[in-house]
Amino acid sequence: MIDYETLFKISYGLYIVCSGDKNKGNGFISNTIFQVTAEPARFAACCNKNNHTAQFIQKTGSFSVSVLHKDTSPDIFGRFGYKSGKDFNKMEGMDIRYGETGVPIVLNEAIAFFECKLVQTFDVGTHLLFIGELIQAQLLDNTREPITYQYYRQVKKGVAPKNAPTYVDQSKLQQKADGSVFKKYKCTACGYIYDEEKEGKKFTELPSDWVCPVCGTAKEDFIEI
Amino acid sequence: MIDYETLFKISYGLYIVCSGDKNKGNGFISNTIFQVTAEPARFAACCNKNNHTAQFIQKTGSFSVSVLHKDTSPDIFGRFGYKSGKDFNKMEGMDIRYGETGVPIVLNEAIAFFECKLVQTFDVGTHLLFIGELIQAQLLDNTREPITYQYYRQVKKGVAPKNAPTYVDQSKLQQKADGSVFKKYKCTACGYIYDEEKEGKKFTELPSDWVCPVCGTAKEDFIEI
Repeated sequence: MIDYETLFKISYGLYIVCSGDKNKGNGFISNTIFQVTAEPARFAACCNKNNHTAQFIQKTGSFSVSVLHKDTSPDIFGRFGYKSGKDFNKMEGMDIRYGETGVPIVLNEAIAFFECKLVQTFDVGTHLLFIGELIQAQLLDNTREPITYQYYRQVKKGVAPKNAPTYVDQSKLQQKADGSVFKKYKCTACGYIYDEEKEGKKFTELPSDWVCPVCGTAKEDFIEI
Repeated sequence: MIDYETLFKISYGLYIVCSGDKNKGNGFISNTIFQVTAEPARFAACCNKNNHTAQFIQKTGSFSVSVLHKDTSPDIFGRFGYKSGKDFNKMEGMDIRYGETGVPIVLNEAIAFFECKLVQTFDVGTHLLFIGELIQAQLLDNTREPITYQYYRQVKKGVAPKNAPTYVDQSKLQQKADGSVFKKYKCTACGYIYDEEKEGKKFTELPSDWVCPVCGTAKEDFIEI
């Protein structure tokens, strides 16, 4: 028996993982970053094969990780989490530093960053596991706490995008549902679910200028599920 | 420049990872567990090559992950985190359930558990990355929060054991020394001074049951000077 709610008991942070160079770069929101060895310090970053940034990492052989803080604005999640760099330049207008390898590092809302040189790539199915050796690490703000995935889900009401390794199909969670009359509406951009039962208010009663709390998409772009 | 303090901004949970069977099993405390794919649900677990449990995982082809809660007793960390199963039977006296693969699952202080069948093993240097496909996941206690590595470090004052991928050599933290990295702590009862520089160990790293070597006063009754 697999209870998919259980998967939310695994703890993660939230990061912007970037790659590319001064001419062209891209980044995405990731929760799956962890250290794999201490000597030398190496990190694993998990990335969907369809993710635009995956191509940059393979091409340039380096990536950066920016650690986001607890009060990171929905704009950052909207820009890096739910939109594809195939369609627009995510780096435009951002506060960027270029690392020792030339990789872009997003400084907006970051409390720390790492720069890694790719040393191994493993194919784990739909995703690639990039192993990077740490070549630079800097603390930018020691007064703010890093955001956790749990906080993002519970307080910020965020959900993982479809490309995330931790994406959970809502129908799997609803296997436990009791068939209540409350409805659920889904943001067509980021997948955020407005659950009438949890919110205590009908979706149709929300003001017309109400927007998705995760990515800022208009109310009219929600669909009933 | 690598500021090793930065590594503590990566968020992790804390888990007991077990392998073996009814006759013989072993487990260790891990913070490096993450999901790598959603379809099918697969998890990565990072394990030192010298870790006794690594042999069991390779031999039996399965492992379990027990998610520890915030108030997990120091006994559990002592038993599974800082002792080797080469020297004693860690499973003895524990509340164990055997999974579908026969793998032991520790239920003590666990709020959830996962059982995984090994599908890939990657060598990342000092450590192995085990990729396991989820075959069972159960929630045991939804009222308690999972413990995070940050909470363990900051509130419980725990440190990673030497085999952990996130172990940080204290001398590296002191590389960024500004001349005052070593602190002194005074026993409020007898006046004994604990000098970190002389002792070669941070006061915060001393176990919580450490007492003043002179008069036996509890660690918590020391003040920084």
